[in-house]
Amino acid sequence: MAEVRWNKKDLLGLEYLSKEEIELILETADSFKEVTTREIKKVPALRGKTVVNLFYEPSTRTRVSFELAAKRLSADVINIATETSSVRKGETLIDTGRNIEALKADIIVVRHNCSGAPVMLAKHVSISVVNAGDGWHEHPTQALLDMFTLKERLGRIAGINVTIVGDIAHSRVARSNIWGLTKLGANVTVCAPPMLIPAGIEQMNVQVTTDIEEALGNADAVNVLRMQFERDVQSAFPQQIEYFKKYGITEERLKRAKKDLIIMHPGPINRGIEIASEVADCSQSVILDQVTNGIAVRMAVLFLVSQARDENQI
Amino acid sequence: MAEVRWNKKDLLGLEYLSKEEIELILETADSFKEVTTREIKKVPALRGKTVVNLFYEPSTRTRVSFELAAKRLSADVINIATETSSVRKGETLIDTGRNIEALKADIIVVRHNCSGAPVMLAKHVSISVVNAGDGWHEHPTQALLDMFTLKERLGRIAGINVTIVGDIAHSRVARSNIWGLTKLGANVTVCAPPMLIPAGIEQMNVQVTTDIEEALGNADAVNVLRMQFERDVQSAFPQQIEYFKKYGITEERLKRAKKDLIIMHPGPINRGIEIASEVADCSQSVILDQVTNGIAVRMAVLFLVSQARDENQI
Amino acid sequence: MAEVRWNKKDLLGLEYLSKEEIELILETADSFKEVTTREIKKVPALRGKTVVNLFYEPSTRTRVSFELAAKRLSADVINIATETSSVRKGETLIDTGRNIEALKADIIVVRHNCSGAPVMLAKHVSISVVNAGDGWHEHPTQALLDMFTLKERLGRIAGINVTIVGDIAHSRVARSNIWGLTKLGANVTVCAPPMLIPAGIEQMNVQVTTDIEEALGNADAVNVLRMQFERDVQSAFPQQIEYFKKYGITEERLKRAKKDLIIMHPGPINRGIEIASEVADCSQSVILDQVTNGIAVRMAVLFLVSQARDENQI
Repeated sequence: MAEVRWNKKDLLGLEYLSKEEIELILETADSFKEVTTREIKKVPALRGKTVVNLFYEPSTRTRVSFELAAKRLSADVINIATETSSVRKGETLIDTGRNIEALKADIIVVRHNCSGAPVMLAKHVSISVVNAGDGWHEHPTQALLDMFTLKERLGRIAGINVTIVGDIAHSRVARSNIWGLTKLGANVTVCAPPMLIPAGIEQMNVQVTTDIEEALGNADAVNVLRMQFERDVQSAFPQQIEYFKKYGITEERLKRAKKDLIIMHPGPINRGIEIASEVADCSQSVILDQVTNGIAVRMAVLFLVSQARDENQI
Repeated sequence: MAEVRWNKKDLLGLEYLSKEEIELILETADSFKEVTTREIKKVPALRGKTVVNLFYEPSTRTRVSFELAAKRLSADVINIATETSSVRKGETLIDTGRNIEALKADIIVVRHNCSGAPVMLAKHVSISVVNAGDGWHEHPTQALLDMFTLKERLGRIAGINVTIVGDIAHSRVARSNIWGLTKLGANVTVCAPPMLIPAGIEQMNVQVTTDIEEALGNADAVNVLRMQFERDVQSAFPQQIEYFKKYGITEERLKRAKKDLIIMHPGPINRGIEIASEVADCSQSVILDQVTNGIAVRMAVLFLVSQARDENQI
Repeated sequence: MAEVRWNKKDLLGLEYLSKEEIELILETADSFKEVTTREIKKVPALRGKTVVNLFYEPSTRTRVSFELAAKRLSADVINIATETSSVRKGETLIDTGRNIEALKADIIVVRHNCSGAPVMLAKHVSISVVNAGDGWHEHPTQALLDMFTLKERLGRIAGINVTIVGDIAHSRVARSNIWGLTKLGANVTVCAPPMLIPAGIEQMNVQVTTDIEEALGNADAVNVLRMQFERDVQSAFPQQIEYFKKYGITEERLKRAKKDLIIMHPGPINRGIEIASEVADCSQSVILDQVTNGIAVRMAVLFLVSQARDENQI
């Protein structure tokens, strides 16, 4: 990897990264993972820098992961949780971003309910923007930590078979995983009820099926999406129990899959809805490894975008 | 005390501690109290460690006290304030705890509206759990700071007479104080209207009375509980003014008590409901000393559980 | 300035400061502004000190600015956001303040919906109190950053003409600016619809007009207040569009003003309500400089009050 250098001030989505850039993030995360095993889990890499978590959607998990990643890099962290007003969203976001820039913060970690919000924000500020999830668009650090975990377990991404099961239509996690995995040479299958498969998804270079048995048949790993029956899914698939019967990842279904099938989930898990409780806790599950790796991956991302910006300024 | 060593990864309640362990916490707190009088009120004891405040009930006072204690030990602090969903509470708590563990945090400080939640959590994670108040069960650090304050004033706990007045039935502060004080040899009396005395309380080795004059007669210290008329008490004792007449700690009542009776209150005080305003502010009141000592006691607890866990891991 | 020394433990309002004290804050801010341009934007001036942000009104902007200022001075920061209960406000505030004092915090930054709350609080605690906005009374750090920005642009305050446009009646920003600017020798004009001009305002040594053209005619700078149609203003001036027509700062109006008229706004701006979008973003606008300077000014204030208190204690 000696030849690749990171020169982007932002991380907006895996769609916008090359294979080499993705691999560079994963390698950088590898060295940061060691830090989190030390007794004193801190490095001074971002000392004196300020990271602002700007969250327009509530998200304890992702916010805490970014906050810890930033603090372990010795950055100062400011949390801003806000409600999106129904009007003038875009305008307000840009003005908010410019204000954060004027406060001499260095990185904005933004979560927004509108797809594309981080891309727009990044154009209007000179400081770094990291996408922590935008609408149905991308959640790049989640996909990066998924890939990091796969590589840690399997030694490689190229050539492996990854199945993503769940509400593909409304999932930024699915989209980011598809971009990242296909760029790194994995074979991706998406599996969902027909109403939850977005039109044209096969153009993203994935296999599509509504049959969970077929989807699991050849998979090395399955990424089980959280079903949000309280929100998006209800009109398409009103019955939780029906979903579990047809698409839930159960011990029964595991028996018919590859013996060492890796079970992934972005969390928080709904036991008995998209995944059986025993499957979530079984030895094939890497769900908690994903959480651990999330810190290392986010440390890598914060470090790389910060360095690129410093260099651009010279 | 040279012989006692702390070897518990958690602090769950004073019920579970020996006399010697309680005394060790108080002695450790004594040395940390000195730190808070320095110009630079910080020690590096927990540098690189992460303390997560996981609060399922709102509590500014306790959260801030733990946050300050952790920061003065140079730990990183993450605050998570959350609402308990009405279903699957236990399950969610354990999953949340395992996720925090996977983030490589070192200590979870948990407040929960369900009695026993910290005990259950501690069984399912290998990191330290500190109970910051659970239901009507225990609030151990509050009782420890109460005892620390008593010892600071009176030089000892053994043999002193302590009266606890208020809603004994719904008070975790009362329960933790009773466990701690009786273990250290104090004589404890509880005093409340009949409806607010829990059945079987005398089996905890306390005197019980509904007569405030009797309860104060021989007391060296009175711990006045906050009456939460907005919540628990209303059905049992609807009239605030009646309560104050019968059980309020007034100047009149102080005159008939020991001259140097110590006035304690866990805060926040309701002036004119359970305590007269002049009594709260009088020279016998140690209410603000309790707040100051809370920092030292919580520094001691965070330090001890963290050390024990590190040693267990070796 | 060699002769002036700061000896106040609090910053409560510009009404209570001398010309020399205001100038000392601005000069101290000047030296802190340099810090925010460094790669490592931190100085150890307040290491081991604790700053508590006690906000009874929501305010992301001011809270974040104080939080960053404190962190760049290496202080520990505790955020408390609370709702004012409708009763016993004063009493609760004092008890809260005394508790924060008992926690051995060093500075309380308080925002309160009641005018005078910080003054009352400062009388009852020995630690420093900084007013972050109280009712319609004062918002001293906002006015200080406004003056810092004016001095940065114009080289001086004495003799310049400053116009304040908007809801003068309900604006603590206006009041603090009037106190500060007139003490430093500026000529201040306030301009608003008749219903939004408070009775007796001319006794504060300002010119008063309802005619925006007249108000801008001779101005070196215009400070455009945020119109809060959702709250205070509605009964007095129900039509936003009417307000913009009569008092909005537009490109058309700028053409008839001085060529280098400085445009200021405390933020957040309402584009198209009190200020045209193009004006907010034009080269004459210093709105984002104000945000940047806010950090330096607040660092100076926190530093000065902390030093004064330390010296008083010796």
